[in-house]
Amino acid sequence: MLTCTGFAAPDAQSPLAPLNFTRRDVGLSDVEIEILYCGVCHSDLHFVRNEWGNGTYPAVPGHEIVGRVKSVGAQVTKYKVGELVGVGCLVDSCRTCPSCQEGLEQYCEPGFTGTYGGVEKQTGEPTKGGYADKIVVDQDFVLRIPENLDPAAAAPLLCAGITTYSPLRHWGAGPGKKVGIIGLGGLGHMGVKLSHALGAETILFTTSASKVNDGKALGADDVVLSKDAEQMAKHANSFDLIIDTVAAAHDLTPYFGLLKREGTMVQVGAPDKPMPINVFPLLFKRLNFSGSLIGGIKETQEMLDFCGQHNITSEVEIIPIQYINEAYERMLKSDVKYRFCIDMASLQG
Amino acid sequence: MLTCTGFAAPDAQSPLAPLNFTRRDVGLSDVEIEILYCGVCHSDLHFVRNEWGNGTYPAVPGHEIVGRVKSVGAQVTKYKVGELVGVGCLVDSCRTCPSCQEGLEQYCEPGFTGTYGGVEKQTGEPTKGGYADKIVVDQDFVLRIPENLDPAAAAPLLCAGITTYSPLRHWGAGPGKKVGIIGLGGLGHMGVKLSHALGAETILFTTSASKVNDGKALGADDVVLSKDAEQMAKHANSFDLIIDTVAAAHDLTPYFGLLKREGTMVQVGAPDKPMPINVFPLLFKRLNFSGSLIGGIKETQEMLDFCGQHNITSEVEIIPIQYINEAYERMLKSDVKYRFCIDMASLQG
Repeated sequence: MLTCTGFAAPDAQSPLAPLNFTRRDVGLSDVEIEILYCGVCHSDLHFVRNEWGNGTYPAVPGHEIVGRVKSVGAQVTKYKVGELVGVGCLVDSCRTCPSCQEGLEQYCEPGFTGTYGGVEKQTGEPTKGGYADKIVVDQDFVLRIPENLDPAAAAPLLCAGITTYSPLRHWGAGPGKKVGIIGLGGLGHMGVKLSHALGAETILFTTSASKVNDGKALGADDVVLSKDAEQMAKHANSFDLIIDTVAAAHDLTPYFGLLKREGTMVQVGAPDKPMPINVFPLLFKRLNFSGSLIGGIKETQEMLDFCGQHNITSEVEIIPIQYINEAYERMLKSDVKYRFCIDMASLQG
Repeated sequence: MLTCTGFAAPDAQSPLAPLNFTRRDVGLSDVEIEILYCGVCHSDLHFVRNEWGNGTYPAVPGHEIVGRVKSVGAQVTKYKVGELVGVGCLVDSCRTCPSCQEGLEQYCEPGFTGTYGGVEKQTGEPTKGGYADKIVVDQDFVLRIPENLDPAAAAPLLCAGITTYSPLRHWGAGPGKKVGIIGLGGLGHMGVKLSHALGAETILFTTSASKVNDGKALGADDVVLSKDAEQMAKHANSFDLIIDTVAAAHDLTPYFGLLKREGTMVQVGAPDKPMPINVFPLLFKRLNFSGSLIGGIKETQEMLDFCGQHNITSEVEIIPIQYINEAYERMLKSDVKYRFCIDMASLQG
């Protein structure tokens, strides 16, 4: 067993605190990664507080992991010691169902193994995430990070990046298409950057007048205040695709009015309550209301390579791991532009 | 002006009663139709009672019209006196927007002209539907009814038929596909017949054990009692498409569990309240929740020709027009197998 150090929640009610724990030894096809940075995703908070019912304690969250290969198993062919690599939301899947065969491990029928909150196949133990000094992951679930990217700012690509890239690609965002992004947070700001880089006309929807300039600076062709009916009306029936990154249930009816016939509204945030959907606009324009979940390994690598080519990273506020509990409180107030990222060197501090 | 006789609601609170009224004279491109039969759609009741806010009084409903051409305008090239024809839910549209140009007049951007409850372009008067002895319709919105079909049983194809045929075709129902139909009423029984005839494996979902044999007789490969969790579980993750014909808001979560990854749930009924949608299954299987509205003229003709080739009609209970108010009460209790159809000869009675 490998001895690790990290931060964990001892139970659903307590703040995160330092923890020493073990991981499996490096197996034949495993890559041992020295973690340099780990992004802070809202899912981390849901997990440690058991808000989705998947808390396992001690809970070590973190699934936006960037680091360098420290050692590899004897059968590892894909990575070498010293390379810059990443780990996202999945560390394993059944590998045999149709979804896995198609490279869509995020839709693995028996269910993928989450980077945290899952059950490690090799040991039967709960998986532990990236708020730690190192991690051991099968080479097939390790990603290559382009060396030209800032590794701290690249970390959130592993979740926020792929979560928005996958629906943009699946629903054909690109030149000649008009794409809306609802919400300018961790997901939304990546959605704006990626949609713009893919060549789509990109419109940001926000409720905050203070975010208009930021949205434009990030690549939005226009920023619409979603509570201003007049601004909304100017875009009636014009969107091919709108991606909703807001995790709280809200009324989508005004946005349905902005979609073209057969346009698609994709939910990437996961509200814990059912969304009340007015079906009349769905009928009258043959609209699609859909969802999308992170992305598969192949598409995540494609996204990372795309980001390398276009020099796209997340906007991050780098924090020491000792700041994590304050960071969670600020995240709850959307008081971050736009993603916290833990500098894992602070673990030694 | 043409003098007509029919049945109408004088206001939203009163039963339907006989009415004499006028229609426009037969214009250059118009077809005058002697109405033989008119199906009774639930929308008729919503209209006369102003439940959708589109009531115009006196309200003459009816948009499942079959009759024979009585006269034609000088420029009519498509129809001849004596031919068996039909009129569905639309009698006009803008004809110039992208939807109209693509033959999808039901999605006309300025809005199609409904057979009733619309505004007739030629006169500016409210349109009046098919509970009448005759109707005048532009040739471009008249359909040809295959002569081998029973005209009474063909009438409901003009709304119930096309409303289910269009989503079946749009989402690719056919050999190798598994299709679910929720509800065995006017729409549902046509959905079962058409899906079966298109070659899809067809499963009916119903809450009534009494409908199991009927469903199979209509062409369902299997009938599932939707409240029986065990029966439902047998079909987990197996459907390409499910069409929900139930107009009341109900919980779709159990059905989402039956769809394959990227499967589609299509709403063709229009609940007047928002549907609460649990978005987790949409995310975890990249599902689509969509809507579909009747069909365009070209597709309606395709559907009628398909029904002619496969000898498909609706199951109807033929009634005299004087029975219409009782028929509405029975329709509200789903006490009809599966569509009332008015024999317009009764108007002379």
